[in-house]
Amino acid sequence: MAASSTLESLTEALRRLPGVGVKSAQRMAYHLLQHDREGALRLARALEQAVATVRHCERCNTFTEAPVCSTCLDPARERRQLCVVETPADQAAVERSGSYHGLYFVLMGRLSPLDGIGVHDIGLEKLLARATDGEVQELIVATNFTAEGEATAHVIAQALKGRGPSVTRLARGVPVGSELEYVDLGTIAHALSDRR
Amino acid sequence: MAASSTLESLTEALRRLPGVGVKSAQRMAYHLLQHDREGALRLARALEQAVATVRHCERCNTFTEAPVCSTCLDPARERRQLCVVETPADQAAVERSGSYHGLYFVLMGRLSPLDGIGVHDIGLEKLLARATDGEVQELIVATNFTAEGEATAHVIAQALKGRGPSVTRLARGVPVGSELEYVDLGTIAHALSDRR
Repeated sequence: MAASSTLESLTEALRRLPGVGVKSAQRMAYHLLQHDREGALRLARALEQAVATVRHCERCNTFTEAPVCSTCLDPARERRQLCVVETPADQAAVERSGSYHGLYFVLMGRLSPLDGIGVHDIGLEKLLARATDGEVQELIVATNFTAEGEATAHVIAQALKGRGPSVTRLARGVPVGSELEYVDLGTIAHALSDRR
Repeated sequence: MAASSTLESLTEALRRLPGVGVKSAQRMAYHLLQHDREGALRLARALEQAVATVRHCERCNTFTEAPVCSTCLDPARERRQLCVVETPADQAAVERSGSYHGLYFVLMGRLSPLDGIGVHDIGLEKLLARATDGEVQELIVATNFTAEGEATAHVIAQALKGRGPSVTRLARGVPVGSELEYVDLGTIAHALSDRR
């Protein structure tokens, strides 16, 4: 391949995107330069603008351009409920379900000691301050049902024990539309013990 | 999700990368903003610089920053052989084999009528001019062995018939290290008819 250090820098920079390896980065670089230079410039501008303007909401910690995000400012929201999620994508999933009308707190991560992510690396302290501000009466922990998500939920519940809001967790159980035959044993066990 | 139009523009811009869908684009945007803002800025700069400086080599059509790429300028190269490939990645593969020392011509695409890519959309005319400049004595067609690559090879061979250089094609056959039992029938048929 003809040496082009600019092309190599571009490939290197693209490789820093999550899930992108050498081959994909090369393919992206060739595609942008051959077929979509306008898209490349648009991406460059979008990156610069996002880095310059996107910050964390002072109240719920999600990404926003204003000091406080639009969800937190929405007067129609039930202010006594606070749903704790790991990422903005999780928040979007809860929001799409259409059955929650309270506020959110986005941790922007989860505890993961193996990856060196401890209580100070995610928004836990900010969450504790927010949860004990007297306004929140119920904290719904909606971290993922993975080992790390469960550990995070446990730490949150422990930290808030006897300090104000009641702490609940999303129900574990059989997913809607599924047949028991194909549901994993752990889920069935939880669905049995949490039966109502 | 808290509405952040900047974040949405970034996700949209990332989606234009080949192989990146909504979920991946969102994950990339969150990752860059949460964990690698420096990487985001580096990518933005790399994109801008590449769009500004990378162009096509006047002789071989590959990506380069100079008018003529370093491979074409290399005096140690055998100038009577010209290897035609579809992309710079293909050129790199031939180069890594270490068994070719001639020059290259990079089509930057392949004929694909179904996708609306005809003879004027890839570097065919530039190739014909280059192949009939009197210097080239053998044109080695190394387009891919796909339907589109074969069609491209056919068109090149037809266009150059009786116009100077001899046109050869990479050998089709059983890949090195493979067992016949697991080789597809088309490959075995070609290996039989091309036996030597």
